[in-house]
Parts: sequence; C-alpha cells; structure tokens
Amino acid sequence: MNKRLKIVTIGGGSSYTPELMEGFINRADRLDIKELWLVDVEEGREKLEIVGAMAQRMIEASGLDTKVFLTLDRREALKDADFVTTQFRVGQLSARVKDERIPGKYGLLGQETNGAGGIFKAFRTIPVILDIIKDMEELCPNAWLIDFTNPAGMVTEAAIKVGGWKRTIGLCNIPVGATKANHEAMGYDENDQILFEKFAGLNHFHWHRVWDRDGSEVTDQLIEAFYNPESEYAKSKKAEVANIAAINYTYEQVKDLGMLPCPYHRYYYIEREMLDENLQNFKDHKTRAETVKATEAELFELYKDPELNYKPEQLTKRGGAHYSDAACEIIASIHNDSRTVMTVSTQNNGTVVDLPYDCIVEVTSVITSHGAEPFNWGTFPPAARGQLQLMKAMEETVIEAAVTGDYGKAVQAFTINPLIQSGNYTIDLLNEMLVAHKDHLPQFKETIEKLEAQGVKYIAD
Amino acid sequence: MNKRLKIVTIGGGSSYTPELMEGFINRADRLDIKELWLVDVEEGREKLEIVGAMAQRMIEASGLDTKVFLTLDRREALKDADFVTTQFRVGQLSARVKDERIPGKYGLLGQETNGAGGIFKAFRTIPVILDIIKDMEELCPNAWLIDFTNPAGMVTEAAIKVGGWKRTIGLCNIPVGATKANHEAMGYDENDQILFEKFAGLNHFHWHRVWDRDGSEVTDQLIEAFYNPESEYAKSKKAEVANIAAINYTYEQVKDLGMLPCPYHRYYYIEREMLDENLQNFKDHKTRAETVKATEAELFELYKDPELNYKPEQLTKRGGAHYSDAACEIIASIHNDSRTVMTVSTQNNGTVVDLPYDCIVEVTSVITSHGAEPFNWGTFPPAARGQLQLMKAMEETVIEAAVTGDYGKAVQAFTINPLIQSGNYTIDLLNEMLVAHKDHLPQFKETIEKLEAQGVKYIAD
Amino acid sequence: MNKRLKIVTIGGGSSYTPELMEGFINRADRLDIKELWLVDVEEGREKLEIVGAMAQRMIEASGLDTKVFLTLDRREALKDADFVTTQFRVGQLSARVKDERIPGKYGLLGQETNGAGGIFKAFRTIPVILDIIKDMEELCPNAWLIDFTNPAGMVTEAAIKVGGWKRTIGLCNIPVGATKANHEAMGYDENDQILFEKFAGLNHFHWHRVWDRDGSEVTDQLIEAFYNPESEYAKSKKAEVANIAAINYTYEQVKDLGMLPCPYHRYYYIEREMLDENLQNFKDHKTRAETVKATEAELFELYKDPELNYKPEQLTKRGGAHYSDAACEIIASIHNDSRTVMTVSTQNNGTVVDLPYDCIVEVTSVITSHGAEPFNWGTFPPAARGQLQLMKAMEETVIEAAVTGDYGKAVQAFTINPLIQSGNYTIDLLNEMLVAHKDHLPQFKETIEKLEAQGVKYIAD
Amino acid sequence: MNKRLKIVTIGGGSSYTPELMEGFINRADRLDIKELWLVDVEEGREKLEIVGAMAQRMIEASGLDTKVFLTLDRREALKDADFVTTQFRVGQLSARVKDERIPGKYGLLGQETNGAGGIFKAFRTIPVILDIIKDMEELCPNAWLIDFTNPAGMVTEAAIKVGGWKRTIGLCNIPVGATKANHEAMGYDENDQILFEKFAGLNHFHWHRVWDRDGSEVTDQLIEAFYNPESEYAKSKKAEVANIAAINYTYEQVKDLGMLPCPYHRYYYIEREMLDENLQNFKDHKTRAETVKATEAELFELYKDPELNYKPEQLTKRGGAHYSDAACEIIASIHNDSRTVMTVSTQNNGTVVDLPYDCIVEVTSVITSHGAEPFNWGTFPPAARGQLQLMKAMEETVIEAAVTGDYGKAVQAFTINPLIQSGNYTIDLLNEMLVAHKDHLPQFKETIEKLEAQGVKYIAD
Repeated sequence: MNKRLKIVTIGGGSSYTPELMEGFINRADRLDIKELWLVDVEEGREKLEIVGAMAQRMIEASGLDTKVFLTLDRREALKDADFVTTQFRVGQLSARVKDERIPGKYGLLGQETNGAGGIFKAFRTIPVILDIIKDMEELCPNAWLIDFTNPAGMVTEAAIKVGGWKRTIGLCNIPVGATKANHEAMGYDENDQILFEKFAGLNHFHWHRVWDRDGSEVTDQLIEAFYNPESEYAKSKKAEVANIAAINYTYEQVKDLGMLPCPYHRYYYIEREMLDENLQNFKDHKTRAETVKATEAELFELYKDPELNYKPEQLTKRGGAHYSDAACEIIASIHNDSRTVMTVSTQNNGTVVDLPYDCIVEVTSVITSHGAEPFNWGTFPPAARGQLQLMKAMEETVIEAAVTGDYGKAVQAFTINPLIQSGNYTIDLLNEMLVAHKDHLPQFKETIEKLEAQGVKYIAD
Repeated sequence: MNKRLKIVTIGGGSSYTPELMEGFINRADRLDIKELWLVDVEEGREKLEIVGAMAQRMIEASGLDTKVFLTLDRREALKDADFVTTQFRVGQLSARVKDERIPGKYGLLGQETNGAGGIFKAFRTIPVILDIIKDMEELCPNAWLIDFTNPAGMVTEAAIKVGGWKRTIGLCNIPVGATKANHEAMGYDENDQILFEKFAGLNHFHWHRVWDRDGSEVTDQLIEAFYNPESEYAKSKKAEVANIAAINYTYEQVKDLGMLPCPYHRYYYIEREMLDENLQNFKDHKTRAETVKATEAELFELYKDPELNYKPEQLTKRGGAHYSDAACEIIASIHNDSRTVMTVSTQNNGTVVDLPYDCIVEVTSVITSHGAEPFNWGTFPPAARGQLQLMKAMEETVIEAAVTGDYGKAVQAFTINPLIQSGNYTIDLLNEMLVAHKDHLPQFKETIEKLEAQGVKYIAD
Repeated sequence: MNKRLKIVTIGGGSSYTPELMEGFINRADRLDIKELWLVDVEEGREKLEIVGAMAQRMIEASGLDTKVFLTLDRREALKDADFVTTQFRVGQLSARVKDERIPGKYGLLGQETNGAGGIFKAFRTIPVILDIIKDMEELCPNAWLIDFTNPAGMVTEAAIKVGGWKRTIGLCNIPVGATKANHEAMGYDENDQILFEKFAGLNHFHWHRVWDRDGSEVTDQLIEAFYNPESEYAKSKKAEVANIAAINYTYEQVKDLGMLPCPYHRYYYIEREMLDENLQNFKDHKTRAETVKATEAELFELYKDPELNYKPEQLTKRGGAHYSDAACEIIASIHNDSRTVMTVSTQNNGTVVDLPYDCIVEVTSVITSHGAEPFNWGTFPPAARGQLQLMKAMEETVIEAAVTGDYGKAVQAFTINPLIQSGNYTIDLLNEMLVAHKDHLPQFKETIEKLEAQGVKYIAD
Repeated sequence: MNKRLKIVTIGGGSSYTPELMEGFINRADRLDIKELWLVDVEEGREKLEIVGAMAQRMIEASGLDTKVFLTLDRREALKDADFVTTQFRVGQLSARVKDERIPGKYGLLGQETNGAGGIFKAFRTIPVILDIIKDMEELCPNAWLIDFTNPAGMVTEAAIKVGGWKRTIGLCNIPVGATKANHEAMGYDENDQILFEKFAGLNHFHWHRVWDRDGSEVTDQLIEAFYNPESEYAKSKKAEVANIAAINYTYEQVKDLGMLPCPYHRYYYIEREMLDENLQNFKDHKTRAETVKATEAELFELYKDPELNYKPEQLTKRGGAHYSDAACEIIASIHNDSRTVMTVSTQNNGTVVDLPYDCIVEVTSVITSHGAEPFNWGTFPPAARGQLQLMKAMEETVIEAAVTGDYGKAVQAFTINPLIQSGNYTIDLLNEMLVAHKDHLPQFKETIEKLEAQGVKYIAD
C-alpha cells in the first residue's frame, strides 16, 4: 500500500510508547508513517514530554521519514488520522491504586480489570472513549480505532455498540503470550506458527484449543504439561503474566474443562488462593499499581537519557509487553490486507453461539483490510458456558451503568460480579469508590453529591 | 373422570404425609383413589409405620373408599400405578445434617439445596430417581411422576433427560407462597386469584412478574411493598419461608431488577449476610436440619396418638407447607384436565429463550391431562439472565457428575457453583463430603475408596 | 369492570357490522358500551349510512344504553377511545377484484391474502394502519387496537414493530372454525371446549395439534377423519371456509406432517389444483371478489329494510363469519381479564423458536387484561419449519416494501413469494398492479409515475 | 509431510479422472502418493479400464513413484487408505437421463441436483455413501472422505450426521469459478487472490460477498458488472457454468439482495425462464445428460489413444471442471496443514446462525490438517434467509426419506421443494420415478412393489 499514514496514539505519554515505536520501526516495509501524533492530557504532560522526546530519538535513529508530534490537543491530532490507538489510563496510576486498595479494605480482591476495580476502570474509561469517538466522527470518519486501553473488552463493546464505531478492534497481549508458551511446551519455534490455535470468550476470560500440524488436537497434552503438578514442564514453569500470581489451578478442574484457560481465570477457578495472595499484597502495600509506580519511575529515569534511542530491556518486565507490538501488527495487517491470524475483541455475530449476537467477543480472527474476520467457534461445554454468559451479562450491566450513570445498575453490577461477594456491605464499597473517583465520573455526579451529603468519604489507608 | 386411581408415594414415611392425605381427602370429588401406597426403605420403617397408621386413620375418618397400603417393597407398590409422587430423602435427615455442617467447617454455606449441600443432595438422589424410573418403565409405563424430592429442578431434569420419563413434573411450594404474599400485599383474597402472575427460571432460582385485573403491571409496586425498607408493608413483614433467614435484599438492586426474586435469591444477592447468619447457626448447632430433627421428633410423637386423625397444626411450621397440597392439585388437574395454572418444573422447549432448549425450567403453566403447558416467557434482562445461565450450567454439570460418578466433573461443579468460593481447599471439602456420604454414593465408589486410601476422613464436629 | 366504554370501529360501513353488533349485544353483561363509533371514508359513505342505521336499530331493539355514532371523521371518533377495531378495506371490493384478476392474466393465483394479491393488500393497508396509530398516539394513547383487516398477520406486525403500538392484537376466524370442526369430528359439543388445541404459525399459515380430555393426542385421529379419502368423515365433509375450494390435500403428506394444517395451506400443499381452480374462476368471472360483490349487494338490500333489527341469516354465508364475534370476545376478555383461550396474532418473543424473536406469530393464547399470553410452542418439524420461515421472511420483505415504497424490495417480495413463479414476467405483473392500484399506494408514487412514463398500463379484462 | 499416501477414488472410471491425475501430478511436491486406487462397479468396468490405463500413462509420463491400481473390489482398495474421494454416479448417466426427462413429462424442471431429479439423485446416492462409510470404519478408520459426488451438500450431511463420519468434506467447483469471475471483472489476476471473498449457504445455494484489498466492499460493484443489463461486462458475459443456461437475473432483485448469488439461484430467482428453457431442451432431447453422454463418448474415444498421457483440452468443456483440481488441493492442504482458503461443505456449528447448529453448510473455510475451519458468517437478510431455511428443511426431509425409505417423507419432500409445483400430480411423478429407479433404491423396495402392483409404470419417452 502506497499511502503515507497518519497515526494517533491517545495516551502517548505511556511508558509503553517505546515498544510501540519499535513496532512501527520494525514494520517500516509495511507501514509508511508520515505523521505519528502522541496525545495526552495535562496530568500526563511531563511523561509525554519525556517519552515523546525518546520516541523522536528512536525515529531519528531509524532513519525513517516519520514526523513525531507531541500534543495535549486531541482534536488537532485526530484530524484526518488513518489509525487511532488508545493506551490511556483515566486518572493515571493513582486511580489504579484506588481500584486495587479500596476493595482490600472490605476483604475483597483489588485488581485492575476484575472485580470492583475492573468495574470502576470501565466507569472511568467508557465516557472518554465515547468522547473520542464523537471527535473521530467529525475529524477522521474513516479511521480505525485500535483499543488497548483496559478493560479492552468492555471498552470495545461500548465503542461499537454505544458509540457506533464499527471500525474498532480491541487488543490484548494474553493470546500472544499463550501462543509463545504453547509452542515452547511443544518444542516448536514460536515464529514458525506451527500450532493452529483457536481462542474464544471475552477479553481476559477466554479459553483456547490447540492442534498440531499433523491434525491431532494437543489441548489435553498442553493441559498435562502446564497444569498437572507432576509434569516436568509444570515444575519448571514460572508466572505466565507479570501481574498475576503463579498459583496453580486445580488440575482435575482444568482437565475436565478440556480447554486451556487464560491466566485471569485464576481469579475465578482458584478464587480463595488468589484472594488471599491479593490481600497479603494489600497489607504489604505491594499491590500491582504500587509496584508498577516504582517500575515506571525507573523507566522514565531511563527515558530521560538523551542518548537512549532504542527500547530498553527493562520495559519488558512491565507486564503489558507485546501489547504495543500486537497493535502495530494489527495496523500493518489492516493496511496491507495481510490476513494475519490474531486473537482480538470484535463483534460476535454468532461466532460464539452462547453469547448475544451483537456483543463483543475475543476470538481468533484473520485481520483483513476490512477488519477482523473471526473463525467460527460454536458453543462451549456447560461449565465454561455458564461462567462466560454471566461475565458477559455483568459486562453489559457495567456498560449500561457507565453510560447512564444509573446507580441501581451500578449496584446490580456489583451484586452479580462473581468476585464481589454480594451483600449490603457491597453498597458501602461501591459508595466509597464512587466518592474516591469523583473527578473522573461525571456521569455519576448527582449520585456522588448525594452520597457525600450523607457523609460517605474515601479514606485512603 | 371415572377411573379409580392407584397412587404411590415414595418416601411415604415422611412427616409431610398427613398434608398429602388431607390434600387427597379435600379433592375427593375430583380424585377417586382406590389404593394409596406409602413406600419407604428399611431405614424409614419406623416412621412409615407411625405416619402410615395415622394416614389410615385420616382416610377412615373421611369415610372414603380408599385403601392405604404401607410397604418397603417399591416394586409391588408401583405395579399399575397411575401416579407416583416422590418425597423421599436419601440418607434421611442425618445426611442433611452432613450437607449443612461439613461446609461450615470450611467457612462455607451449608444448605439443603444450594452450595455444596445441594450438590450432594443431587448426587444422592439422582441415581435413586433413575432407579425408580427403571421400575416404572416395567411396572407402570403410563404413570405420571410428580417429584417433590429436592433439588426438584435437577431431579426433574435427570428424570426427563437422562431417564427419558417425559411424564414427570417437578414441584415446589415457593410459587404458592409468593401468590399468597402478592395477594395479601395488594389487599386481595388469595383464593380469588385476581392477580396474573408469571414465574420463570429454575427451581429455587426464579423470578416473577405480576399484573392486576385492570391490566397494569404491579411488579414494581410489590417490590416497593416488600423490599423498600421505608414501606409500611416491609416493616411488618416476617420471613417468607421457614428455612430462609428474613434478611432484607439490597433495595436498589431488586428495584433495578424489575422482577420479584424468589426467597432463595438471598443466597446470591446478599451472599455475605446469609453466609454470616448460616455460620452463626453452624456454631450454635442450630442448622436447619438440626432444628427440623427436633420438630420431626415432636410431630412423630403427635402422630403416634391413636386418636389423631387429622393434619395437626404443628405440621405447618415444618417449612415445606403447601408442597403436598400442590402435589394433590397437580394430580387432580392432570386427572380431570382442569387446566389449573401452576408454576412447575417442566421441559423448557424454548419457554425461556436464554436457556438450552432441552433443559428443565420452573415456569407458570396450565396443567392439562397431557401435562404442563407453559406460558411463553422469552428473555431475561442481562443481570438475571447471566446468573440464571450459570445456575443451569452448574445444574447440568452436577447431573453429569451424579450420573457418571466422574470426579473431575464433581470438581468442576464445585468450582463453578457461585456459593462455593473456588480454590484448592474446595477439593478438601468435596473429598470429605464424598467420604461422609459414601453409603449413598455408589456411583463414586472407586473415587471414595481411593480417597480413603489417601487418608481422607469425615470428621463430625 | 364498571367502566363504560367507548369503542370505535374503523371500516364501520362493512357488511359484517351487524355481526359485530350482535357480538356486543350478546356480551352486554361483560361490556357496558357507552358509545360505539362506526367510522368510514367518503367512498364508503353510502354503505356506512345503511348498515349504521341498521346497527342503531339493533341497539334500540336490545334496550341497551349504548349510543351508535356514524362518522367520516376518524379523529373525532378516536378521541378517548378504549378499543379500536379495524375492518376496513382500502380501495373497497374494487381493489380486491384487481388483486384477484390481474394475476390471472399472468397465469398466476389471484387471491386476497396470498400471492400477488395478498402482497398488494398489504401495500395498501399498512400505510393506513400506521396513520391510524399516529392518530391514536395523540387521541387515545391507552386504547387497544383489535385488527381484523387482512392480511391480519402483516398488518399486526407493521402496527407493533413499525408503528410501535404494542397494544395490538390481530384476529382471524380460521382457528374458531377449526375448533368447531375438531369438536364435531370427535363427537363433542364445541361449547364444552373439551379438546385442548394448540395453534402456532402465522396468520393463514398455521398448524395445530389437539389433545383429548384423557390426555391422549388426537391429532392423527383428526387427520384420518379429515384427510384420509377413505374416512367416512372426509367423504361427508364440505368446504371448511367459504372462500377456499374444498379440494383435498394429499393424504400422505398431511399424515407425514403430523399436525393439522389450516385451510390456506391448500395453496401451498396442492398448489397446482388450487391454481387450476382459481384460473377457471378467473375465466368464468367468478373470482371471490366478484361473488362477494353480489352477496354484499343482497345484504345491503336487506339492511335497508327499516324493520330489520337483528343479524340476518344470510350474513353467515359471507365467509368471514365469526370474525366479528371473535373480536367482541377479545374485547370482553381484555376488559374483564377473563383469560379466555383464543388464537391470535401477537408478539413472538420466542413462542415459536424457529422464527425471529421480535416478529408477529399467530398462536394460542390466554387473553388477559394486559394482552395475549401465548402458550409456548417450541420448534416445528423440518418440513413445516422451512415453509414457515420462508413465509415470515416474505412477510418481512413485504412490510419493508410497504413502509418504504422501495421498488427493489417489492421485486424481491414477488421473487420469493412461493405462489408467484419467479421470473422477469413477474416484473410485468408487479408493474401493472402498481399502476392499477396507484390511488392507494402513495408510498410508491415516484415509481408508479416512472412506470407510467414507460408506458405501463393497467388493462382491465 | 513425509508420509507416503494411499489415495482411493470411488467412481474411478469417471471421465474426470484425468483432471484428478493432473491435480495430483501438479502437487507432487506436497503429496507423495504411493498408491492410487481407482475403484468402480461392474457397470463401469469398461470405462474404468479405459480411463485407468490413461491414468497409468499420465503417472508414467510424470516420472513419479506412484502405483495406480484399478479394481472393482472396494474393500480391498479402502484398506489403510489415507484419503478417499468419491466421484461415483449411482446408475450411471442413464439414471441422470431419467432424472432430467421424467419431470419434463409433468411439465416440471428436470435437473441433476435441483427439483425432483436432485431428490432422486440423493435417494440413490445416500445409501451408497453410508455403505462406504461402514467399510471405512472397519478398513481405514482415520481416512478423510472428500466427497464430490452430487448432491454434495446432502451427501455430506448424510455422511456426517447419519454416518457419523466427521472427517468428511464436501466439495463443489462453483466457488472456484466465482473467484475466477470476480477477479476477472475487477481486472485482477485470479492467482494473486487479491479479493477477500466470503461464501455462505448450502451447496448450489449460497451467496457471497467480496472485499477489495483496500478494505472496501465491492459486492455491489460486481452486481452491477454482472447483472445490470446496461453494464459493458454483462453484455460481454457468457454462461458461468456449462450446465446452466445463461439467462440473466432480474437486476433489481439481485441488487436488492446485496450479495452475489450462485449460478443455481437462477432456478429459484427466474424460475419461469429456466423452466421454459429446460422444457424446450426436453422436447428437443437436448437435456444435459443427453448432451453429456455424447461428450463422454468422445472423451472415452480420446482416452483410448495409447499415446495420450496428459489431460486433453476437451475435458474442460465437460462442466465439472475444477472439481477434481479442488479435491486435490483439499487433500494437499489437509496433508500439509497449508491452511488454504476454500469454500466447502462442512458442519455448521453456528457459522450460519439462521440454520440448525448440526447441519451441513457450504462456507468459506481455512483447510487445516484437522479439517475445515469456517469463517463466521452470522445471519442473512430476510429474503435470502427464508429461502435458505426452506432449502435446508427440504434437504433434511430428503435425507430422512433417503435413509428410511419412508414414502410419506418422500411425498413431503416433493411437496415442499420449491421447484416442484405441489399437488396430487406430484404423487404420480414421484411414483413413476420410484419405479423408474427401482434398481438403485433398495430402501424403497416395499413401496415400489406396491406401486407396481397398482399398475404404476415408468414410461420412457
């Protein structure tokens, strides 16, 4: 494709930006980028300046004819964009700290995309994505939106169903990691893409099956390798994902499942162990956000080095590795109609029969120039099906609350979320979180004012 | 209908039998019963003899030409039966005590039809119902099976889907109680059946909507009356159901739901309060089975009185009130094609679109001579839909484990049950319960032997 | 119910009006009608005056305190109405003559509700019903709309799905007739409602099953009686419906079906015989509309008699007998919450799983004060399922064409209609019919002008 | 893949065999064939010998180390086979002549895979494919069955659903031809596979959509090119498929459809023109089978030439061109896990939401070593949906009749088939065809004997 592209990255001040730059530079033969706009908000100005300068150095070192712009003016950036990627975090890491710590005070899991924290991240992010879409309708009506802001599944569902922006693809690095692990466990080189893998479910709540090149299904063999405590492989294994504790599943349960779970299933399949571990971190002030804050500070120190013009090794430890690279690959595949096989969040349209036709699912797809074409999946066995259906129902409830600011709907979402033990104390947690995040929840303004009038307070611990 | 009937009651030694007798006597104009067979097992012989004698006295007092037989020989009883009702309890109340107390040791809810206890009740009961069906195929191939043995939904699903006995109807007294309460709250006489009510969901997990005679829906009005803590009615209200604590729902959540929940929803909607209350009873040795044991002892003392020939007032306190009366009404409606409107467990066939076509649902139906004809329901709003789908998936998993004795499937059922916090300790609970109930779990024989060899023990507390 | 009602009948000048009057008079104990408004258009003024005067005489003779108004001002009539019934015919019988005769020129079936004629009746009627609904929104927002204007299924679907008037029930007399026939064939008195019948499908395209009071299904027995050419009953049988030739089905086909077809299935199951008979009538100028015109002329002569104050016997021959009576029964059942069992066109909502959730189906329902509550049906066996699905798809296409005036959609409807052999000549037929009906097809105005400019003409034969 | 393969071709005496040989020879780098078995029945012995010798010459000329076996012993051939392809024709071309000519006597379409002829081809073929599968279960339990015997959709559905042989893929050359035409119309080289095409529906009854490399959908553009009578391309176009007359669609109808139809849709979309043309051929004794008989005779004369060792040009005219080549490509893609994109008949599993989950559909798939992985399709717009659903229902009815020999089911299939005008005369046609094909319809033996006793005769014209 000959067209010179304008790409916009919202949340450009992220510590991940160097990976994104590297991804673009490595795909220079498939992506001829004329302008790359890194956009951020006032709160993130300093980070944007540091990492933006670093991005400019990387481009310079690459010798490419790409201009990198840094701006706080989103509308200027969006004008005539071809691709918009989103990696912003409403409320910065401080908001994440609240998501992870407030539930802990109530004896509940504090996590970025699961439980009460995940619900509040959706509450804060969905209005912003809808706002971005409003700008895009006006300024770049043909652009593709590649979302890797979490919770990516709900954000994509809101963008497509509520915002009506069909050209949205949601992205996650978990399937990339699983592919790596599967090839490694089978003794193959990941780059050869020997295994045929089919993922289906929701973002952070999907399963997959794997076939070998001779046509035999090797899912059970991989379950043995990964989850049988007796297997050599399992004994040598470490954490799959930096932000999830490497506690083993109940082998019999995963074996009965007959599919490979995703790392986040731990919160649902071994809920007690994960909760205990999470509450220990809470007590030790070692929640993920607190850890990441330190890592980030180190990274930004590195980025300040005016000599550094390549992605530093340390970034890989950050947890979201491969995210940005996957985003670059999607852009390249759309732009070139490369038909790369990737697992992304896209419209269901019957791919997973057990879920509503018009919802968003995360499924293995071929990425074409007209979007993601998923492989059909069909139905799930009952045990997976039921939990999946509940999660989607919960997501729908969260999105409705996020869009309308309806308090009853928020209570409902808390009630049915499987990681929040329901009860009247749930209301206390919900109320405290609403007040804590009030700067980023305009849709709940009235409710929050009423709560504050009733004396509800956020008490940092 | 002129035919003189043979009716068989399996679990005839139950303390509820007098209510059943009263139900039959009250419907003498619609049910001409030639023979009534009360069947029980050796363990229940004494109770059968006491309550059986009482049943004979009740018939005698009624002046009806009905012969009451007491027997331990199920096959003799089933020969040429027209209706078979089941009210047996495998392992008697002692098994229920285990179901309620063992989970408590693990900090989990101990309950007869929910959580780990409900799963084990299904494990013990399903093989027996399938055994009864095998006898029925041979001895009374045209008989109707009216099941009110719990968990009635799963038992009915096993009877119809696994046993292939289409002429099964499962029964619960909860909808009867709800109808009473709704009429009372609206100021109507329940017997006038003024309100039009439509229930749908699963046994012990359904919702309903209510319309007044002028066509207006009064569901929200009833939600206000029952669940708004400010309402006069709510303030005066007591426990809906004897075996469920009268802790109030979160008003905002039920209001958002827009449907009336069933009493058992408390375990899911205010999980923490219900668990706390349950664990307190556990500590105090006041679990429901322990309480019932005392009540039953009293009842049987009463039944021994050779002068007593009517249902004593005390039976009403027993919790299962109306169950037996509802069973009599179903029999009368089938026999006379009365087309009575009742809420029963029957084949879904699309009544609830959100659930598998071939599963069993509890829905408002017209009871005809050819069975239950349910009113169409359609879909549920997301929050109810998701939990309902998970519960059905859990039921399917439990039934499969109950039928096959597959240990992995049992682990899976424990993992996805929303009242069992998943984790490796779940395995310990499952294992202890398997060993504790070993006399009534022939399908798990091999697994249990293995567990015992590994040192797993049931430790009564 | 104490409320004094205002009822409006659109198409009040119909020859059926006396049956409607009789229906109201017979239900005086359940319907206290204060005002009855008969509305018609200028074209029908004369008939309205004749039959309206007759209606007034009938009321007078009944001694009821009801006032009958005759008007051409629909809006005046609709003001504060409680029930609106529709029995109008856009373009009067002359339009029906065209529907029945133009297809004949192309060698195709000419029929009021099937084939090309049925499509055009929908094209003319749907815009008018949507117009009526607009008035109702303003003038009587709580009224029920009881439609018995054909094609009742499509008109009801347009009213509910396009017009958004949920309080619409579509009505047909075919199920009433079938119930009569079934009871007669079984030797029962129809008024005893002994048989339990369940109908499902679409208006003029449904099937039904029947159960006897002992619970046995007698569908096959009735198929034998009605359709086995050897059966005594079949030999004595006459036409089921006045406007459908009494040609027998292929017995083996109906037997394989295992359900009772509706009379209109003849057009689909024995297409060739029905077409031959229809074309013969076409040649003889004895199409149904031509016959009815004569009958109507006779009826209106009778109605002119100032002494006649009761429904004359001759009306029964008219074909639509029971329609008006059924309409009165629905009104009475809604008003009194009588919960009468009737087969009506209402929202599917999953009642028939094989059809879209949001479409209109004709199904056996309980008529309550809040509308029709259908009995669940489930799925059909393949042979019925496939044709039913095609018919619904055709209906959806017709409705879209009727609402938008899209010519391509009209071509599509003609192409997939199973009674119109597709082909380029279909276009000629469509074009001639568009031109012929131009006075009643405002939505196709542009297309028709274009066709006329191209020389397309309607040539009466 | 290193394995040396054994491939078996049932119906090896077909005139297409040289194309198959060429396909294997051209893919020698991906398919190392040790043994190729050409199997036929006694009736086809002569043809097998001629074309088999020719096949051996082709292999010899290629220099490959492949041994070609000719046999009438199917079981010997199947022993340890890796792939089995089917291209047999039960009853040879003489049976096809009957399928095409008998309907003509009744004024109906005579065609190989549509209407009455298609139904009888299914009746004859399905029992044979089930027989082959029985042998395969015993002799080559891991082999893949590649069916290109027509009607390929129904044969595949019978093989998978009735025979239980999941490793079946049905094949058709129509999509290959459409891809060629689309690339040509867009000015692209077909081999570059620039366009992204998605087909869905049934064998000989599917539609497709096309996207260009820049992501824009070009379906409408192709509809203009192919079907707008004013387009340059349409004016220059010839028949798409040798056996289907090149009569143009109604442009407005195809335009409204918004998808590209398959050539066989002509029988349904312009039924009258196609019927007229077919009946003209009938009168002129130029039905397709009669024409093909002549072509075949010529081909076999050519094949006798002991010097000929390559596929002769003339074979391309035969109509089924690309079939065999597509079969070779599927085999190569399965064997090598090449993940080639092809449109094949495979299990639906929700790919087309409008059709039963467990049926067979023809859909664009990636061919992997574990079978076809279809791209999700979703739903169709109403007009296509309805006809598709009817066709599938008809197929299900035909398959049931073919498997059981149930006469009522055969009557039903004839009644609902959209190309057979239903009616009592349909029975006469059905009866004559049953008698005409009696040698190849063992399942209908009893029925046929009864018909013959009643005097039914096949009268060749």
